[in-house]
Amino acid sequence: MIIALLTDFGTKDYFVGAMKGAILNVNENVKVIDITHEIPPQDIRSASFTLRACYKSFPKKTIFVAVVDPGVGSNRRAILVETGDYYFIAPDNGLLSFIFDEEKQSRVFELTEEKFFAENISRTFHGRDVFAPVAAHLSKGIQPDEFGGEIKDFISFRKANPRKISANKIEAEIIHTDHFGNLITNLTEKDLPENFALEINGKTISKLQDFFAESEKSEVFIILGSAGFLEIVAFRDSAARLLNAKIGQKILITRNP
Amino acid sequence: MIIALLTDFGTKDYFVGAMKGAILNVNENVKVIDITHEIPPQDIRSASFTLRACYKSFPKKTIFVAVVDPGVGSNRRAILVETGDYYFIAPDNGLLSFIFDEEKQSRVFELTEEKFFAENISRTFHGRDVFAPVAAHLSKGIQPDEFGGEIKDFISFRKANPRKISANKIEAEIIHTDHFGNLITNLTEKDLPENFALEINGKTISKLQDFFAESEKSEVFIILGSAGFLEIVAFRDSAARLLNAKIGQKILITRNP
Amino acid sequence: MIIALLTDFGTKDYFVGAMKGAILNVNENVKVIDITHEIPPQDIRSASFTLRACYKSFPKKTIFVAVVDPGVGSNRRAILVETGDYYFIAPDNGLLSFIFDEEKQSRVFELTEEKFFAENISRTFHGRDVFAPVAAHLSKGIQPDEFGGEIKDFISFRKANPRKISANKIEAEIIHTDHFGNLITNLTEKDLPENFALEINGKTISKLQDFFAESEKSEVFIILGSAGFLEIVAFRDSAARLLNAKIGQKILITRNP
Repeated sequence: MIIALLTDFGTKDYFVGAMKGAILNVNENVKVIDITHEIPPQDIRSASFTLRACYKSFPKKTIFVAVVDPGVGSNRRAILVETGDYYFIAPDNGLLSFIFDEEKQSRVFELTEEKFFAENISRTFHGRDVFAPVAAHLSKGIQPDEFGGEIKDFISFRKANPRKISANKIEAEIIHTDHFGNLITNLTEKDLPENFALEINGKTISKLQDFFAESEKSEVFIILGSAGFLEIVAFRDSAARLLNAKIGQKILITRNP
Repeated sequence: MIIALLTDFGTKDYFVGAMKGAILNVNENVKVIDITHEIPPQDIRSASFTLRACYKSFPKKTIFVAVVDPGVGSNRRAILVETGDYYFIAPDNGLLSFIFDEEKQSRVFELTEEKFFAENISRTFHGRDVFAPVAAHLSKGIQPDEFGGEIKDFISFRKANPRKISANKIEAEIIHTDHFGNLITNLTEKDLPENFALEINGKTISKLQDFFAESEKSEVFIILGSAGFLEIVAFRDSAARLLNAKIGQKILITRNP
Repeated sequence: MIIALLTDFGTKDYFVGAMKGAILNVNENVKVIDITHEIPPQDIRSASFTLRACYKSFPKKTIFVAVVDPGVGSNRRAILVETGDYYFIAPDNGLLSFIFDEEKQSRVFELTEEKFFAENISRTFHGRDVFAPVAAHLSKGIQPDEFGGEIKDFISFRKANPRKISANKIEAEIIHTDHFGNLITNLTEKDLPENFALEINGKTISKLQDFFAESEKSEVFIILGSAGFLEIVAFRDSAARLLNAKIGQKILITRNP
């Protein structure tokens, strides 16, 4: 069994070690895999995008534990999601929105059975005290509905789809910037007209390329990224830096005749 | 068997890979877990705090290898500590001080049996050449006293406890700052009077909260952190940045009537 | 079986998680080990150095997957290298140059058998779609020559050896700077005369020490590093910062009488 972790805990503290320890303490035979612990602090949407971009690469029955949890210690709920192929354990704060978009048949359970939590639950670290032990018990064969009752009113953000603002214009958005400075948009291939002009921060891009190679250094263009969204990229350079662009930034697409 | 690693090696070089390789080269069946490799370079106290904050989350018999080793290549000793529940392997430089505070019944062995080291021992990388292979041999069933003789004069720093400086005043200290900018103090819950004023860098804090939620953004307050110490935190913000505070910084607690 | 990963993907995105998922999806029984994912973006030489500095620490039969791949999506080839003791999977762009230097008996196969790739191959992420599944199939017993034909014209950079520029002078180079600010040169022990002056950025160093300890803070000297090259280091300080030195920087060694 595989338990894959995604958090905003960073990697310099004891947080990730404590979560792994808490998992292995319940089930020493599980394989614990790091996706990332460097989600920008409390950025639920970036966490949701990152999880969606990789979960289908994993074997069926993988258990994902995703913790970006600004409401820890308050009365926000904790949930377990069963999609048929995968399991997700997270706070009920919208973190799994992109997953719910993809997996319409999901069942969602509220985590209430405290016998599967740590004996003493801190107010600030449910990653260690709730989510980790629940994942480990699930990996040992406890059934999803044994952790608590099914709920229907879980939180899911409407995915920020591109917005048509006139016959020939679409407004879209940067939803993620990656390690290389590539700008991931909320546009998919079908959103882009054959002839287009994409405006961002006063600059216009009208070139769609198949891949990165065979350009001039720092040339900016658009590619279909490996997460299924269009990305604004620069050849051997950072588009984020060249365009001074950030997460949440609006972009305008105009259809040319 | 689990071998958990904590170092100041960073994650951009071959150091961590080489340590993991050296462990698996002796025992391919062990599970190697990263706690962190981002202890501030040569900060023995931060390493000691981080290890203490998570080791009890791990299953019994876990072997911890902790390497922050400014004296590598000199005549500083290397040690193996057996606490009954856990094993710790580290340089004898005070790194295990917080562990010795918690585990009074520990036995400490000096690592001298070179047959458990790498064949060629570099002067600068005992993580790979001494600590990793010793941990791997221990995981295969070699007994602690086979690695060398028991010693009593190992190095242990006196834990920096808060200091009473008058009838109503205590001086304490910031011992760690985490990824979120929370300031971990050396105060435990019992050190804090019911009514108090905590001074840090000319600012005064007098609010103790149960958890993070339900505050105004950037409001600074105190919580009981998940490592068992009081922490100065800011709601959805970095207390370290807001208070311009650092590790080692003094704080003053005054009891109010 | 062990699959060890080395990339320039960074650790904040879904890239590393997706690669691990893609490996485990083919062979859930393999042990996936991170060497590093923080090779400077597209720095093939730094990747090659880092891999060479640690691969011999791993057990025989370890499969190394190294992905620094500026040419992804173009017609650059992908290769599998069998050295007798180890396997390496990488783009054919010189990344394995240091390995070819060490392992003269290597056989190199071009990866062409698409049945071992992902079903849909993206243009930008062969780490997930080609290199990961090939490594996983290799770990399950597929033979190297089943992935494609043997080739002889793979790309290998000439290792940047020190250059004799007069009877008493050698020009060398900084090939890597590590987490601690140590400057790794392309000099080995035999390149250094007994009495020497090493010039870097207008400063002269003439002290070779056995190890780090027993110096004054910030004193700069030379040691034989754990990767087998001479390193310019500073006691409890960063030589890179003190000397304002970078990768690629030239250094001059003069033999003194």
